[in-house]
Amino acid sequence: MSYFTKRYHPPGTPPGTLTQHETASKTPPVISLIDYTANEFTETKLVSFSDCIPYLQTESNTWIHVQGDPDTEQLLALGELFGLHNLSLEDILNTGQRPKVDSFDEQLFIIMSLPVLTGKHVQIQQVSLFVGHNYVISFHRGGTSPFEQIRKRMQKRSSKARLHHADYLMYTLIDAIIDEGFPVLEEFGDLIELLEEELLESPDKTTLRTLHELKRELIVLRRMLWPQREVLNTLIRDEHPSIQPGTYVYLRDCYDHTIQIMDLIESYRDMSASMLDIYLSSVSNRMNEIMKVLTVIATIFIPLTFITSLYGMNFNNPDSPWAMPELHWYFGYPMIWLIIIFATISMILFFKNKKWF
Amino acid sequence: MSYFTKRYHPPGTPPGTLTQHETASKTPPVISLIDYTANEFTETKLVSFSDCIPYLQTESNTWIHVQGDPDTEQLLALGELFGLHNLSLEDILNTGQRPKVDSFDEQLFIIMSLPVLTGKHVQIQQVSLFVGHNYVISFHRGGTSPFEQIRKRMQKRSSKARLHHADYLMYTLIDAIIDEGFPVLEEFGDLIELLEEELLESPDKTTLRTLHELKRELIVLRRMLWPQREVLNTLIRDEHPSIQPGTYVYLRDCYDHTIQIMDLIESYRDMSASMLDIYLSSVSNRMNEIMKVLTVIATIFIPLTFITSLYGMNFNNPDSPWAMPELHWYFGYPMIWLIIIFATISMILFFKNKKWF
Amino acid sequence: MSYFTKRYHPPGTPPGTLTQHETASKTPPVISLIDYTANEFTETKLVSFSDCIPYLQTESNTWIHVQGDPDTEQLLALGELFGLHNLSLEDILNTGQRPKVDSFDEQLFIIMSLPVLTGKHVQIQQVSLFVGHNYVISFHRGGTSPFEQIRKRMQKRSSKARLHHADYLMYTLIDAIIDEGFPVLEEFGDLIELLEEELLESPDKTTLRTLHELKRELIVLRRMLWPQREVLNTLIRDEHPSIQPGTYVYLRDCYDHTIQIMDLIESYRDMSASMLDIYLSSVSNRMNEIMKVLTVIATIFIPLTFITSLYGMNFNNPDSPWAMPELHWYFGYPMIWLIIIFATISMILFFKNKKWF
Amino acid sequence: MSYFTKRYHPPGTPPGTLTQHETASKTPPVISLIDYTANEFTETKLVSFSDCIPYLQTESNTWIHVQGDPDTEQLLALGELFGLHNLSLEDILNTGQRPKVDSFDEQLFIIMSLPVLTGKHVQIQQVSLFVGHNYVISFHRGGTSPFEQIRKRMQKRSSKARLHHADYLMYTLIDAIIDEGFPVLEEFGDLIELLEEELLESPDKTTLRTLHELKRELIVLRRMLWPQREVLNTLIRDEHPSIQPGTYVYLRDCYDHTIQIMDLIESYRDMSASMLDIYLSSVSNRMNEIMKVLTVIATIFIPLTFITSLYGMNFNNPDSPWAMPELHWYFGYPMIWLIIIFATISMILFFKNKKWF
Amino acid sequence: MSYFTKRYHPPGTPPGTLTQHETASKTPPVISLIDYTANEFTETKLVSFSDCIPYLQTESNTWIHVQGDPDTEQLLALGELFGLHNLSLEDILNTGQRPKVDSFDEQLFIIMSLPVLTGKHVQIQQVSLFVGHNYVISFHRGGTSPFEQIRKRMQKRSSKARLHHADYLMYTLIDAIIDEGFPVLEEFGDLIELLEEELLESPDKTTLRTLHELKRELIVLRRMLWPQREVLNTLIRDEHPSIQPGTYVYLRDCYDHTIQIMDLIESYRDMSASMLDIYLSSVSNRMNEIMKVLTVIATIFIPLTFITSLYGMNFNNPDSPWAMPELHWYFGYPMIWLIIIFATISMILFFKNKKWF
Repeated sequence: MSYFTKRYHPPGTPPGTLTQHETASKTPPVISLIDYTANEFTETKLVSFSDCIPYLQTESNTWIHVQGDPDTEQLLALGELFGLHNLSLEDILNTGQRPKVDSFDEQLFIIMSLPVLTGKHVQIQQVSLFVGHNYVISFHRGGTSPFEQIRKRMQKRSSKARLHHADYLMYTLIDAIIDEGFPVLEEFGDLIELLEEELLESPDKTTLRTLHELKRELIVLRRMLWPQREVLNTLIRDEHPSIQPGTYVYLRDCYDHTIQIMDLIESYRDMSASMLDIYLSSVSNRMNEIMKVLTVIATIFIPLTFITSLYGMNFNNPDSPWAMPELHWYFGYPMIWLIIIFATISMILFFKNKKWF
Repeated sequence: MSYFTKRYHPPGTPPGTLTQHETASKTPPVISLIDYTANEFTETKLVSFSDCIPYLQTESNTWIHVQGDPDTEQLLALGELFGLHNLSLEDILNTGQRPKVDSFDEQLFIIMSLPVLTGKHVQIQQVSLFVGHNYVISFHRGGTSPFEQIRKRMQKRSSKARLHHADYLMYTLIDAIIDEGFPVLEEFGDLIELLEEELLESPDKTTLRTLHELKRELIVLRRMLWPQREVLNTLIRDEHPSIQPGTYVYLRDCYDHTIQIMDLIESYRDMSASMLDIYLSSVSNRMNEIMKVLTVIATIFIPLTFITSLYGMNFNNPDSPWAMPELHWYFGYPMIWLIIIFATISMILFFKNKKWF
Repeated sequence: MSYFTKRYHPPGTPPGTLTQHETASKTPPVISLIDYTANEFTETKLVSFSDCIPYLQTESNTWIHVQGDPDTEQLLALGELFGLHNLSLEDILNTGQRPKVDSFDEQLFIIMSLPVLTGKHVQIQQVSLFVGHNYVISFHRGGTSPFEQIRKRMQKRSSKARLHHADYLMYTLIDAIIDEGFPVLEEFGDLIELLEEELLESPDKTTLRTLHELKRELIVLRRMLWPQREVLNTLIRDEHPSIQPGTYVYLRDCYDHTIQIMDLIESYRDMSASMLDIYLSSVSNRMNEIMKVLTVIATIFIPLTFITSLYGMNFNNPDSPWAMPELHWYFGYPMIWLIIIFATISMILFFKNKKWF
Repeated sequence: MSYFTKRYHPPGTPPGTLTQHETASKTPPVISLIDYTANEFTETKLVSFSDCIPYLQTESNTWIHVQGDPDTEQLLALGELFGLHNLSLEDILNTGQRPKVDSFDEQLFIIMSLPVLTGKHVQIQQVSLFVGHNYVISFHRGGTSPFEQIRKRMQKRSSKARLHHADYLMYTLIDAIIDEGFPVLEEFGDLIELLEEELLESPDKTTLRTLHELKRELIVLRRMLWPQREVLNTLIRDEHPSIQPGTYVYLRDCYDHTIQIMDLIESYRDMSASMLDIYLSSVSNRMNEIMKVLTVIATIFIPLTFITSLYGMNFNNPDSPWAMPELHWYFGYPMIWLIIIFATISMILFFKNKKWF
Repeated sequence: MSYFTKRYHPPGTPPGTLTQHETASKTPPVISLIDYTANEFTETKLVSFSDCIPYLQTESNTWIHVQGDPDTEQLLALGELFGLHNLSLEDILNTGQRPKVDSFDEQLFIIMSLPVLTGKHVQIQQVSLFVGHNYVISFHRGGTSPFEQIRKRMQKRSSKARLHHADYLMYTLIDAIIDEGFPVLEEFGDLIELLEEELLESPDKTTLRTLHELKRELIVLRRMLWPQREVLNTLIRDEHPSIQPGTYVYLRDCYDHTIQIMDLIESYRDMSASMLDIYLSSVSNRMNEIMKVLTVIATIFIPLTFITSLYGMNFNNPDSPWAMPELHWYFGYPMIWLIIIFATISMILFFKNKKWF
């Protein structure tokens, strides 16, 4: 996961400029529409946004979901239809936005961060929502819709969302996005426990790399999820005409979830910070082990080699009684062995005493 | 203790879904009921929640305690009986929740974290409370009830709880849960003092592991106990019709205890952070000791071995006066010993000067 | 100083339980009473609290000081006499409380932390105060009263405290407790300067231990003194009928002192955190010194020993012109010396170049 | 980039003193004026500020941009013309100011920090703005105007800025300044990813230097950009007569950008802090590798050399059966080889067991 | 600079006690008086404070500056004359106070911290100010007055301070004190840049000491300057009758300066924290260098010495064909050289491969 994931227009571009990014996919987005009341339910695919006009004029609730990269003309058409601010439309194109809620007179514009786990790595995708009195428009740039399950559930007449207004649908979508954090964090929790074991038992270079990647993902995760707490808080605190009073208890539950997720991320960050220190300690510990082996061997054998080397000298003046008389002693050689054995035992006792064994 | 202890429904599950978790125990929960006034006292076991209806219709206070995993039908029945919100019932099943208080019109829903010490390790268990005008319903998922002592005390007519309303009972339960933190932290305090001694005297791999586990438990403990401060604060600040004015002085006392517990956890965290540095310092210190031994031995004997090795060379051209004449000197060998003794003493003085001994 | 210094009743004990702790001293406490106005002054020792009744009924101010562990009956009698809350009395027995102020209708209950320096170590003792319209009751569990000087000063007619109400006496006591922090922190400041010098010059194991103990005492000191800021703030902000308007300027001065003390503790903590890093750096530095000595010696002599060892080989096939002809050269031995001298000088220049000398 | 970039007058200089700094460029500043309404557009260069008087008396909006170091007299003339406070003029000369907004009755004085990327390094330049009812005066000390693109855009009749008041021009300028942060941070994000790879693969001295420079630039960047958040917040919160209600939605968008930039800087700082630890770990890891090589070689060959050195001794008393009889054994030499081979294999197995290979 | 610089009376001393400290200088303080209006100006030295009475009774503004340690009697006389609180007078004697502002009915009492650079070290001196409707009394304990320049400027009729009330004089003094921070921090910024270069190039023990002293001075500087922000904030927020409305814009400018100074100190602290890590990394890096040299030399020569030592053995049983036949080979000695050369080249290639050269 990259640190800098924001798409932006070059500085100095006029505000509210809607131009396609080069990285945008070329395939047109899939626009699906669901029109529902407690009793009726229509599901259709739209070719252009203007096709939704007949559905909007009824009292029924309408949910338009745009999967993929919308192009500039489509967005402008949509903007005119619903009276959306150009700055909001720009934020839909410039993905990688910070989660936020903008409150306009008639509608709410909400940006959320959807964490998606691919393998051991996590990616943050942007979901944007426009919420009005009787409609919700959602945008998601990734490959598969995160709202597939909700769509299916709504087909059933017993579905709770069918009995409520558009704001309850908004809550359901937000709740689904936030709750995607739990499996991600469960996976991360398992990874941390695994890493801890590895760190204490057999730390190596790949452990360091995994640990570093974990830290990095936690930092990005935190940056992208943290503001969701503020989003929910704003939704709860600033009463907006599009939100029914009965929905607040549900939003409060969502808010609790965002706090729990932040608590977990903070715990993980605390832990991963301390894990680097443990890595360092483990490496130092192993260095000590290595040095002990070297020191024990060298300290025992270097003095012994000195002794043997001593008697390898060729002082052999036959006239001098001082010319290494030991070499000629009867018990010279056994004496050397006694010295060697004594020195070795002393050393071993010395190291035992130092608790190096 | 695992980092991620929360039970959750898969993202996209409709809010307020009540389904049993696979890890739930199969044995049915024990539901006990206590109905009391200052003068009367009834204690009974309930088979189903509906059996409690007659007790609720009197003015006496009723305490229902559910020990173990309640099943979905029971919870739904209970919810209907007392008008409980589905989201609250879901929180009882999805244990591992963050402590919180939800204030409904008629009742309070409180989630608390109960720290339980098993051996040297601590576990967090969830206790959930519904508090109404004249009833308290408590849920605890663990094996043994944390409220056994309170139950016994209430059998006595002199018991203070008998003289007060249901809110005083709520306070007694909360107080018991919070005060369980003190023995846990006393144990941790002792463990830290022990570890410190070990770190400074003889740090090894197991010390590192113990230290790491301590940090981990402190992080989880903090995450799960910290919000209780907010819970108590909310109870004191937001006046709820179910709480009598005279109970606030007791809740404030509880609040002081939560702060004291957080202060202790913070102190322990500060200390354990610094202990890892001390570990590292101790390991480095020992490395220095090891290196000093190696250096002293090697520095003394390697030059000596060079000297002796020098005179082990076989330059023996009998015609050359330059062919190692020293070997033929009368006092050649004693001279070498003098050099050896002089070099050794110089080295020892050098090391003494460096304060390596 | 222990981390966990709080006395507590086992969880589940009814709130406001007053039972003596096992660690309480067996000798009865000394209860002294001072009754004073600007002109009159009576000082006496009380056998039981009920003896103070006649003094309370006059308009004069009364100061009762309890030195030592009061027993349960005494406390209960006192509680009834002055209408004290059982939770407050429990806090007097359960020393190690966090400083706090509880405001009741008729009186203030204040807990303060008194830092006492014994040798180089600091201990925190609890002082508890009840302050009413015309009385102050103070409790201190330690051996000697911290208020001896104030008591003596009040005997003089010119004493300022004699001219004011009980609230000024309260201020005098609080001021004395807080100001005890200054000599303690002056001592700590000196200790840190000493440690710094030691760390940079000759760090060893005892330095590490002293540093660690310092950190520990600063952590506990901070935990126990920090809340006093809040205590003073509450006294200043929440106007209580027992405090005269003119006393607030004095309490504000006290508040400034608590902030200064916290500032100092924070500075010391910052410094002690950095000192551990300096210790580690110093130890690494010394390791470098040791390794340099070893490397210089080994790098000079190991190659030389190889050369000498080379000519210690016994290739002496008399028929082969390849059998170490150097040994038989006329200038063979001096040549070896030239090689040795050249190699040594090269090495020394190499090390000079690396700035290892 | 230097830490201390503020120009200041010597302490004790009278407030509002306008004297040229020695480091100021000698070339006179370029003063350009744009006078515009939706339909009309005039662009001209000014010789002195007084030339702008005719443009100010019309209802059209006027934008004066000063590129370079203005001299004292010019500033004083300008101040008199627009009624600017001397302290504000002083801040224009003393560049390196903290971003801020000062609200006067008739105008706003805004200081912003413009991050400019030169090579891999970033520099902060000060942009100062005076905003009145129908004029904007902007100052920039650097070489090239950061507003070139905006100037060009305004020449077109379709330009949005032409349709709005001076406050919208102010927003456009502020937006351009803030958005310059994104390319800088994208560059930094790439640099961090590069550094991470280098740190884990092959850390050396230049990595350390690059890392340190990165940290330093992040610290300065943070110090100079952080207050812009407060500037935008003040503009949004404190309604000023010069700002039209419709402009607030644009300023809120700017505010979001400042927060996103601060979030990114914080993430980078977190990461760069952890990267130093990884550097240290990598270096320790490599030390371990080095030590293992040394230890393996030394531990294998030092004992072997002892053995061979042993049989290099010259104990050759022909009368003693103890004088190294092994030397005279028939299979003496092969036996030594067996010992050598056995010792070597044991050592290798020992190291394999320790997982040093 | 010492950590603990506060003068204090022993705990238990009555509040407001005015006794000279032993460290006070014996020379009497210099008391100078300036009496000024826009047109008139009188400057004189006072022998005792009572000499200023005639100046106070006029409508002109009076500035009394006390340079040096005032003695107790003088202070008491002054206190009575101006109605100063004893606690304020005590704070003038007990220098080392935290900056603060105390607002009395008739006057303001302000304590400021003046940073003074002596050589490379910084010292904090206390300046105390009493400000009334038409007088300012300033105290400074150091050797030379920090207000000399202001005094001289006021002699000129054109001086801005002459045209305003006493509150503008107060602002001028405060501004001069705060701005003394800039040269100090510029010096520190240079020192940090110098240290960084040294750390990355050639770190040694003195670098560590300088770095530690820097940290220490930053900690003390922060402690003593931080509260000035609050002082200015209080002056701006709490309107006091002695301060004219027109002065607030100047005080806000001062406030900006205190924030800029705190920002710089924070940046420096961040940087100095990271510099210790860089020191450690540099030291580790150098250790790696040292170890590489040792390992390369030892790994090349130890095996070679083993080989040569092998053929130094004296297995010379003339009857055994196994007795070191190599020694008698025709090409024995050249073979050894081939082995030596081959081993050396292998080792060098091995190290090249490991990138140790």
